[in-house]
Amino acid sequence: MDILVSEVGPRDGLQSIKRAMPTAVKHQWIRALADAGLKEIEVASFVPPKLLPQMADAAEVVREAVKIPGITVLALVPNMRGFQDAVAAGAPKITLTVSASEAHSMSNIRMTCAQAIESARRIVEFRDSLPASQRPLIEVGVSTAFGCTLQGAVDEDFAISMAVQCAKAGADSVGLSDSVGYANPAQIKRMFKRLNAELGDKAGGAHLHNTRGQGLANVVAALDAGVTTFDASQGGIGGCPYAPGATGNIVTEDLVFMLESMGLDTGIDMDKLIAARRFLTEGLPGEPVYGYVPDAGLPKNFKRAAEHA
Amino acid sequence: MDILVSEVGPRDGLQSIKRAMPTAVKHQWIRALADAGLKEIEVASFVPPKLLPQMADAAEVVREAVKIPGITVLALVPNMRGFQDAVAAGAPKITLTVSASEAHSMSNIRMTCAQAIESARRIVEFRDSLPASQRPLIEVGVSTAFGCTLQGAVDEDFAISMAVQCAKAGADSVGLSDSVGYANPAQIKRMFKRLNAELGDKAGGAHLHNTRGQGLANVVAALDAGVTTFDASQGGIGGCPYAPGATGNIVTEDLVFMLESMGLDTGIDMDKLIAARRFLTEGLPGEPVYGYVPDAGLPKNFKRAAEHA
Repeated sequence: MDILVSEVGPRDGLQSIKRAMPTAVKHQWIRALADAGLKEIEVASFVPPKLLPQMADAAEVVREAVKIPGITVLALVPNMRGFQDAVAAGAPKITLTVSASEAHSMSNIRMTCAQAIESARRIVEFRDSLPASQRPLIEVGVSTAFGCTLQGAVDEDFAISMAVQCAKAGADSVGLSDSVGYANPAQIKRMFKRLNAELGDKAGGAHLHNTRGQGLANVVAALDAGVTTFDASQGGIGGCPYAPGATGNIVTEDLVFMLESMGLDTGIDMDKLIAARRFLTEGLPGEPVYGYVPDAGLPKNFKRAAEHA
Repeated sequence: MDILVSEVGPRDGLQSIKRAMPTAVKHQWIRALADAGLKEIEVASFVPPKLLPQMADAAEVVREAVKIPGITVLALVPNMRGFQDAVAAGAPKITLTVSASEAHSMSNIRMTCAQAIESARRIVEFRDSLPASQRPLIEVGVSTAFGCTLQGAVDEDFAISMAVQCAKAGADSVGLSDSVGYANPAQIKRMFKRLNAELGDKAGGAHLHNTRGQGLANVVAALDAGVTTFDASQGGIGGCPYAPGATGNIVTEDLVFMLESMGLDTGIDMDKLIAARRFLTEGLPGEPVYGYVPDAGLPKNFKRAAEHA
């Protein structure tokens, strides 16, 4: 496998939609995604149910998802309380979110950027105190690393320094998130080159939103910078409830099509992936889903990466 | 100016829509596009009105557009007859279309690929026989260079050889067209590198469709290969009436936003460009228009290329 596509629809996608997808449908959808070949799926976020009732079944979803062989189950947490809940549910890998924008940090996790680093440090310490069998991997995503709808510009040095501090705090990997769809390909290439240079093995992936239609263009730039992990959400659902104006993630279907067409192996079966959209349309009837390839179909000359000469 | 964005909406866009935009609205729309800073606009195609009644006013549109200072007016022609009509209307630059797919060539211009090259040669000879003041520049676009909905795969060597033969036939520049939205960024980069290597100064631009959402990703790859001219259409309207399944061109608004954000100067004013969409919605009420940036708005941290440090 050349590129890891990390599906975030059941978390980033569903938490941006007011209605909750029934828990049983979540289970089926996650199984269908795994069956299509997704190797990593972010299935829930551990936040107070009164803030995000769509995620009230997070523990149940994680407990069911970890039974699926061959996938890494990810859960997102904003703080220690969420981390402890995710560990209790048995999440093997946890995404912690910090922001490169003070305004977004306060809005999203009610901490300053400095407090968020301190929180990450305490979470890593807590993780390291757990019995080995219960210690999850910790991935950090630096939100609004390319600009913020609340604050406007985000200083690139500051965004990189947040990533460096998270790595020093003990995170296993740190990626950069264009949470609000502000990034352009030149900036993506520049910033991920810096991230790779500063973090080495701990440099994480790209979390991109397609708010201004730049998502796949940014992927091409990130590939050029050596990024090998990309978040995406089926049907392009998503956004951020605490970042006004953010819309959906890059569409898994269109991303996988692009990568496979380029000869980059994702291990994902396009037909099964497209078929899994039915759980979205059945589980959230009337909710808009996005993506070009599901409508246009595969080209007559399409070859999976594995079939390239 | 770093990148030439060549607007093809009034030609590629309008000829794919069954209803005709009123001639007076075409005039207003083209003026608004020029006022927004577009430097090259493909305003019409000279084809029999019984085949494409939307283009029946081609001569009138060209005669009006050439009065606008500061723009290059392009007209598309399929053959000698169209070329002569375009010259008579005073078009200073003419796009000739050939195909890299025999099936599309027959469907689109009712010639084999070899006949299309021979036709190009005769058109160049005719052009060279005209008084200097009436000699238009001739640009060739090699359609279906990346695959064809009729034929499926297109041999890359053959597509490049079509471009080479057109250049040898005397065309001033030869570009490659992904008429049906089949191309991927790896292929785009490979093919445009070859085009540049083979044609040097005569290597033309990229004409891309967004059928599978890969348009801007392909632009990033083409930029990497040194391409400096991109066709795009306002509102992403377009397709090809003789290539089943083709949908719209890349969206001018999203393309210009990407290029300017990357620090690549287009000379185009985003606000005026977005304002020009009203001629589309007023001239063709109810017709779908596309584009992310017009809906999402410019980021708070947006800078035009000219404002970059």
